[in-house]
Amino acid sequence: MSQLDDLLRDLVVANRILSHEDVVDAYGHISVRHPDNPKHFFMSRSRAPELVERHDLIEFDREGEPVSDKRQPYIERYIHAAILESRPDVMAVVHAHAEDTLPFGLIGKPLEPVIHSGAFIGGKVPVWDIRKKFGDTNLLVINMAQGRDLAKCLGAGNVALMRGHGFASAARSIIEVVRLSVYLPRNARVQMNAMRMGGKPKPLSKGEIAARLSGYKPHSHETWRAWEYWANRAGCADMIGQPHDHAAKP
Amino acid sequence: MSQLDDLLRDLVVANRILSHEDVVDAYGHISVRHPDNPKHFFMSRSRAPELVERHDLIEFDREGEPVSDKRQPYIERYIHAAILESRPDVMAVVHAHAEDTLPFGLIGKPLEPVIHSGAFIGGKVPVWDIRKKFGDTNLLVINMAQGRDLAKCLGAGNVALMRGHGFASAARSIIEVVRLSVYLPRNARVQMNAMRMGGKPKPLSKGEIAARLSGYKPHSHETWRAWEYWANRAGCADMIGQPHDHAAKP
Amino acid sequence: MSQLDDLLRDLVVANRILSHEDVVDAYGHISVRHPDNPKHFFMSRSRAPELVERHDLIEFDREGEPVSDKRQPYIERYIHAAILESRPDVMAVVHAHAEDTLPFGLIGKPLEPVIHSGAFIGGKVPVWDIRKKFGDTNLLVINMAQGRDLAKCLGAGNVALMRGHGFASAARSIIEVVRLSVYLPRNARVQMNAMRMGGKPKPLSKGEIAARLSGYKPHSHETWRAWEYWANRAGCADMIGQPHDHAAKP
Amino acid sequence: MSQLDDLLRDLVVANRILSHEDVVDAYGHISVRHPDNPKHFFMSRSRAPELVERHDLIEFDREGEPVSDKRQPYIERYIHAAILESRPDVMAVVHAHAEDTLPFGLIGKPLEPVIHSGAFIGGKVPVWDIRKKFGDTNLLVINMAQGRDLAKCLGAGNVALMRGHGFASAARSIIEVVRLSVYLPRNARVQMNAMRMGGKPKPLSKGEIAARLSGYKPHSHETWRAWEYWANRAGCADMIGQPHDHAAKP
Repeated sequence: MSQLDDLLRDLVVANRILSHEDVVDAYGHISVRHPDNPKHFFMSRSRAPELVERHDLIEFDREGEPVSDKRQPYIERYIHAAILESRPDVMAVVHAHAEDTLPFGLIGKPLEPVIHSGAFIGGKVPVWDIRKKFGDTNLLVINMAQGRDLAKCLGAGNVALMRGHGFASAARSIIEVVRLSVYLPRNARVQMNAMRMGGKPKPLSKGEIAARLSGYKPHSHETWRAWEYWANRAGCADMIGQPHDHAAKP
Repeated sequence: MSQLDDLLRDLVVANRILSHEDVVDAYGHISVRHPDNPKHFFMSRSRAPELVERHDLIEFDREGEPVSDKRQPYIERYIHAAILESRPDVMAVVHAHAEDTLPFGLIGKPLEPVIHSGAFIGGKVPVWDIRKKFGDTNLLVINMAQGRDLAKCLGAGNVALMRGHGFASAARSIIEVVRLSVYLPRNARVQMNAMRMGGKPKPLSKGEIAARLSGYKPHSHETWRAWEYWANRAGCADMIGQPHDHAAKP
Repeated sequence: MSQLDDLLRDLVVANRILSHEDVVDAYGHISVRHPDNPKHFFMSRSRAPELVERHDLIEFDREGEPVSDKRQPYIERYIHAAILESRPDVMAVVHAHAEDTLPFGLIGKPLEPVIHSGAFIGGKVPVWDIRKKFGDTNLLVINMAQGRDLAKCLGAGNVALMRGHGFASAARSIIEVVRLSVYLPRNARVQMNAMRMGGKPKPLSKGEIAARLSGYKPHSHETWRAWEYWANRAGCADMIGQPHDHAAKP
Repeated sequence: MSQLDDLLRDLVVANRILSHEDVVDAYGHISVRHPDNPKHFFMSRSRAPELVERHDLIEFDREGEPVSDKRQPYIERYIHAAILESRPDVMAVVHAHAEDTLPFGLIGKPLEPVIHSGAFIGGKVPVWDIRKKFGDTNLLVINMAQGRDLAKCLGAGNVALMRGHGFASAARSIIEVVRLSVYLPRNARVQMNAMRMGGKPKPLSKGEIAARLSGYKPHSHETWRAWEYWANRAGCADMIGQPHDHAAKP
């Protein structure tokens, strides 16, 4: 298969995994940058991620509009367009409403990495409040101006919370952004549980976070192990191909 | 199919969804107003929602009594009759005991919309205490007088909590009342989790709630996406028909 | 089928339901009094309740010993023998370790009915601490003396918590003790969640509890509805028979 | 089957159980000491425990290196090598990240046995912080020096928490270490829930813990009951053999 074929296959698998792991439900989405045309990206048409098939994928342009496709896109595609625009290092973006990340968007206490699998969060997570700049809205990101404001809040980071709504995460590959998005709610639960016992949970140190981020290889054996496991749980182990289909690619 | 056929099919699907999403268990029910005789409504006979089939549906009159049907009805059918009587704008009603809504009925702290999917709650949720007017009862709503007192507490709103018992929710369509009822416990969990971290969770503003409510279309692509997703999870995706079966109807 | 056949069939179904509803895991058990010899009772041999079949059931005598059966019984059968001895009104007993009931056995704050489905708890639940009378043990009830001490703590009530261990519940029929045991952890969770928001949860009043208990019929349509639902979830809906098999019996 | 065959079969079953019971996900592992060569041990190659088959098992030497096997081992195999080295009484080791154990590694409040099924924890659980001796790392145990430092923290105990990472548990048999590892997160949840109600949970006494530990037989009927139950839930009941395959062995 070509690299594009591999990516689109992985994008379908990622949709199923994010749904099975309760990161998304009927809502939430994942995109991947076009490998040959880095200003474009791919994402499903407006469909629950659990049900996404290869033929549901649409190519989008840099402004978040479908390229030669009349099917209904996700309303909030501008989150993806704006983050991919501002972050040339990012290859894949997730937007989701995972329940246990939401409390941290509502109070003044930051979500931060407290467990090693949460290191990919990167540090204290900024909270973007659409109301600050755009006043009373329906909270959805419905144009590039809003998407760019969110991307600015994300900055060079890996995750931004969206007050009363969810989060946006960004990484160098589909596998990485899935891993980050799956462990983000777990880190949130552990942090909440520690806080509730009346202690002040000890976060990972900057050095520890740096050690984990620098040591992480998106196509290592350890990463593949999780990909195979999640795909199996999501019922699509037959779709994932072999490690070397992924390992040879950036 | 006729509009009535569509509605009854949707009512069966709604029963299954509410059960699969843990809004109801063996108890709890959903009704829909008769499209041709707005003083009547349909609801299952006394059966666990997960098991409801088309032939279990019964037509009820304005006083909550079965029309020409000798099968055992739900005891609390008066909740539905009274709300449909007092609210001509409402087409569908849910009564359920979803566990995570219950704590807010026991203490003096109101449940309110803190996440965008909870906007349909509408605002701070009133708590109806049957004891106030009816003294010591078995907490069930067993006649129209009690139903009307609950409907009065609901007023022009979308949800009322029932102390020590559950909630009643009301909306303009089956899809809307299901969506509201599924996201109500989620909003409750997020609010509880935020409160427990010692912060004061920031609720949605009145303007945000209004923006979401006014922008919501019961037969939009986004709504259908959730309906298809929930039905698939509940094992009845084959029953939902096509979007145009629903979109053409009010 | 004879009444005994019906009871033993129901006992198998009850084992499966209690397991599926997370009241028991590999441990925990349910017994029923012998309908023709009220000093004896039936319970499974030592086996995880999920796996119990009709041929696993053993008849026990009033001292908790198997009658003409050499298979390994549950160690804690004395809980059942002692409660059935002290309470002629009780037909069925459950002992389980349901996780969310356990915190209330560890601190000085009583579990009590706060939701209508928890009314069958009856009132503030006493906590039995085996250490008080028997010193350092392995916490298991391994003889009639310990069982009788627990039965004394239960008194005329429906449930007693066992510190660091679990609970024992008692009712007039299998269906009732299952219902009580399924809703007990739910009531516990709702009460804990309300307490954690910093409020003082409003319990059911004595009058409300009395109204619910007096109005409850073990073979009513409403009870059957739950039985059918739970059995269906537990994968043994084919075993439950028809309502009239149960309704005609005490 | 030989004792080695039995052990390797049990090791596969243990992998599946730990995964199904949410003790491990794609990460985490279990090892067993070689019955004929006590300086060696067996563990899967780098694979999610849920997917482990007999042919995935690798023999490791006392330094944690694979014996004549070129397949990718788990990075953290040194946890197992070091604990088996320091503890001749230990036959099986688990390392996992079970979510509900993690909060206790982040604050200064010890996890300790509060329920009878948690007695096997043994007492207040020490917390090993890799940073103390090794500074900023990626938190993984990647060599024998780190493994030995962890083993020292474990001492003669049954469990050590690893700050921001997980736990290591050790026992005299596969069945025991699985049981300990399954009930550890449950004990943690019960303790957290009791603490959050504002009380001080009453731990098991030293005498109670001793009574439980001394009375525990790894091949008793009660232990087999749980093994059969867990294997059945994990979908590998057909693999467990008969009790006498296990009971005859140390």
